[in-house]
Amino acid sequence: MRQQFEALGKTPANHVPLSPLSFLRRAESLHGPRTAVIYGDIRRSWTETARRIRAVAGGLVGLGVQRGDTVSVLCPNIPELFELHFALPMTGGVINTLNTRLEPETIAYILDHADTKLVIVDRELSPLLSRAFELLGRTLPVVEIVDPCTAAKGALNGIDYDDLTRAAPLPVALPDDEWDAIALNYTSGTSGRPKGVVYHHRGAYLMAHGTGTAWQVPPYPVYLSVVPMFHCNGWGHPWLMAMLGATVVFTRIPSADRILDAIRSHGVTHFGAAPIVLQMLADADNDAVPFDPAIRVLTAGAPPPPSVLEKTRAMGLDVMQVYGLTETYGHISQCLWQEEWNDLSPAQQAEMQAQQGVAFPMVEEVAVIDRSSGAHVPRDGVTQGEIAIRGNTVMAGYYKDAEATTKAFKDGWFWSGDGAVLHENGYAQIRDRLKDVIISGGENISSVEVEAVLYRHPAVQAAAVVAMPHEKWGEVPCAFVELRAGSKATPDEIIAFCRTNLAGFKAPKAVIFDILPKTSTGKIQKFQLRERAKSGIH
Amino acid sequence: MRQQFEALGKTPANHVPLSPLSFLRRAESLHGPRTAVIYGDIRRSWTETARRIRAVAGGLVGLGVQRGDTVSVLCPNIPELFELHFALPMTGGVINTLNTRLEPETIAYILDHADTKLVIVDRELSPLLSRAFELLGRTLPVVEIVDPCTAAKGALNGIDYDDLTRAAPLPVALPDDEWDAIALNYTSGTSGRPKGVVYHHRGAYLMAHGTGTAWQVPPYPVYLSVVPMFHCNGWGHPWLMAMLGATVVFTRIPSADRILDAIRSHGVTHFGAAPIVLQMLADADNDAVPFDPAIRVLTAGAPPPPSVLEKTRAMGLDVMQVYGLTETYGHISQCLWQEEWNDLSPAQQAEMQAQQGVAFPMVEEVAVIDRSSGAHVPRDGVTQGEIAIRGNTVMAGYYKDAEATTKAFKDGWFWSGDGAVLHENGYAQIRDRLKDVIISGGENISSVEVEAVLYRHPAVQAAAVVAMPHEKWGEVPCAFVELRAGSKATPDEIIAFCRTNLAGFKAPKAVIFDILPKTSTGKIQKFQLRERAKSGIH
Repeated sequence: MRQQFEALGKTPANHVPLSPLSFLRRAESLHGPRTAVIYGDIRRSWTETARRIRAVAGGLVGLGVQRGDTVSVLCPNIPELFELHFALPMTGGVINTLNTRLEPETIAYILDHADTKLVIVDRELSPLLSRAFELLGRTLPVVEIVDPCTAAKGALNGIDYDDLTRAAPLPVALPDDEWDAIALNYTSGTSGRPKGVVYHHRGAYLMAHGTGTAWQVPPYPVYLSVVPMFHCNGWGHPWLMAMLGATVVFTRIPSADRILDAIRSHGVTHFGAAPIVLQMLADADNDAVPFDPAIRVLTAGAPPPPSVLEKTRAMGLDVMQVYGLTETYGHISQCLWQEEWNDLSPAQQAEMQAQQGVAFPMVEEVAVIDRSSGAHVPRDGVTQGEIAIRGNTVMAGYYKDAEATTKAFKDGWFWSGDGAVLHENGYAQIRDRLKDVIISGGENISSVEVEAVLYRHPAVQAAAVVAMPHEKWGEVPCAFVELRAGSKATPDEIIAFCRTNLAGFKAPKAVIFDILPKTSTGKIQKFQLRERAKSGIH
Repeated sequence: MRQQFEALGKTPANHVPLSPLSFLRRAESLHGPRTAVIYGDIRRSWTETARRIRAVAGGLVGLGVQRGDTVSVLCPNIPELFELHFALPMTGGVINTLNTRLEPETIAYILDHADTKLVIVDRELSPLLSRAFELLGRTLPVVEIVDPCTAAKGALNGIDYDDLTRAAPLPVALPDDEWDAIALNYTSGTSGRPKGVVYHHRGAYLMAHGTGTAWQVPPYPVYLSVVPMFHCNGWGHPWLMAMLGATVVFTRIPSADRILDAIRSHGVTHFGAAPIVLQMLADADNDAVPFDPAIRVLTAGAPPPPSVLEKTRAMGLDVMQVYGLTETYGHISQCLWQEEWNDLSPAQQAEMQAQQGVAFPMVEEVAVIDRSSGAHVPRDGVTQGEIAIRGNTVMAGYYKDAEATTKAFKDGWFWSGDGAVLHENGYAQIRDRLKDVIISGGENISSVEVEAVLYRHPAVQAAAVVAMPHEKWGEVPCAFVELRAGSKATPDEIIAFCRTNLAGFKAPKAVIFDILPKTSTGKIQKFQLRERAKSGIH
């Protein structure tokens, strides 16, 4: 009888807020003596790692970090950033990882917009942070990490991270509410300014479970930390690895030689990486014996070129392409291998593997919808719609941007901005990027942001930036520029101007001077420019 | 800033109630053409299975089933019971599976206590249900399943289940609230009357994720349905199998020949079974070639005897012992294999495998606590405490029994009633059953219930029932009886008396007449009797 069922309420015994902090307690309690961290000469057990994390949490509370406080972290993939993925949420604070390749202007913008209370910085990046503070017009309290594997000299006279590890350790406490924010991740700003994407504990917990099942990660994997933790918190992998009692191997820099050396030295079983990294590995490792058993690899960002998939398969890398966005905690769909593909040629297999595939098990639905009619597209491999997502690993919303949040969640879906078709077997495949994003070496570049810089050049009348295919980086920005009457400029001058105003990877790699094609209402027809950039006929 | 984070609310795009019904939608959408069900000559795809389920849900709504209504099902493991694990929750109703081996008295008690609105019965069991109705003093609406693999004749003139499959299919709708009840499972009544354990959608969903990860079930397993679905809904496996697009193989009767035949015919990869079933398989399959790759097996109920684990390993069964209770949706801890056990002798390995182990990843904590002091016991392998559990796969509570619910959840833990020690590596091992449960062939027998029958015999002055080791069944009930002065009885008479008043498996297999050992306050000292029953010296 309904009332009788409803009389049974939640108690501490039968209701625990979903939070990845549970995995830290689990790792400390059940996997204590196992090696948690390998980095250079450093080896730390889960007991030691958990104790350090709990001490850092205590230290951060001592510095005044409270529930709902944003703490920004500017740091490559080293053990300290891994630790902060637990220590910061333990305080009730929100971890805001910053892309280490951003220009100081954007860092300053984020520190301001995110209401950052404290910045934790790897000392090698202190000069970058220092420039961001100058642009911000104020400084913030700073904790500095001195990585023994670097010889960083710059310093902001911040508190030493090592001091935090000597604070009194806190016990692991879960948030009162599983909807509490755990992370704040800024998009690359496809429509200009970056937006702050808010993750909650519930989503981070479910992301770990769904990834563990779908990727079939066994207990005690040896995981190589390649996906930058400043991208969707490393696709949630740090939390999953605690759940499974993994050994996590760090190399700081994801260069081919360091990755291959780490794999061979430590018996790596799993990692995630952008296609550009796989390409680097394939180029560097042509003569070596294939890894056996194969290493399980997730890749995302842009579909890896078939040639790379063929090469990595030969190397003994079992690559699964996944798809997702910052707004979805990372991957939400996977190109799950189908037995019937076994009979295809390597080239055909690589083509299949480049699809975006089907929803992860923790995702409620990945649909392809005709936005104008609201209808799901037929499974014909031809009709285009927009990828739309529903589920518990969709962001809480954009920080301090109710308008963008409402727009993103229209009609009960999160709209990805990616155009796709559905194949007969339900696999989604991206056909066109509805947003003007250029994916270069795993980094998203907003064409709008680059255009904004171009428009600041005195000789530029109009500008449009589109993706141009590139053998190494996948895509690079290509700028089409209309010069002002009577003005003169060379492509090299324009590129140099962009490089002084943007992170290097965002600067156009080609500049073409021409009249821009426009619609009758004066809108630039980017699709025509894309075709030209693709065809190489400028 | 906390207020800014808290301003981001739940929407249909980013918050979906956790429910295993999501897995049905997933299976229909993504695994449609794959075979979902194999039973005798029946082969049904996920498309067909999902359509049948949605039709049955529509048919049940047509019969008046509403949110919070209990529907009892008396049925062995056949496809219809699997379908009902989705169809009933789809209606908002609560599935109450009945142990098919129960006596009519207990079935009548449950139908009454559960406020059952409708009973769905396999026609072979209609006579049993009919007797239960007689004892209940009233009948309930009935749906009858006519299993083509039986020649059942008895009938209650109920609605034909097949008619439900022809109703208009409902779309899959999730509950409004993930805390809504999904199942009502009666305990075997260790302290007399069975208690109704309430499961909710949230727990069932998380059980599937945690089991998938911990058991490392790949996509598209071939699962053999051996664990009775009337035990904790088959440990939640029906829901997990939908998530993974499994093929589920049914044999109706879990006999050794049917199981071995199904494994060989259909390439079974996974199943769960009580130790008694493993023993049957080991006895039946001495000369066959080992399964390769090994079949992944979960076993629970009582620790399997080392001899059985040795034999099953030789057969190619990769057995993991798990532990749990009806109150915890089935398994909450697993005896996860440790690499260092590889070097042990088979007998030592089997001993290790018989431990209850460590928490599943969806379980917050499995602790061993000294109930009097509230302290966790040290990891010394010696100090006893009681296994206590916290997490989202602990029941909502006991149906209509606030007192028992409060007692079970004392101090923020669910108290298992099982006494255990903790080893240095954090593995729990049961040392003593604090509750007086006898586990016989995978069935729990309440000693209190058997004693109650004994006490009804005119010659019995006092009685105590304890577990006696048994080669085939693991344990069987052994009764110690003090006869009334001047009364006479033989063991066979007492056993026969019990068999007329209890299900056959609950009747004592040995009766010993003696003065019962008592404490100074007159309490029977069962531990002494257990020693006698174990040693065989009566």
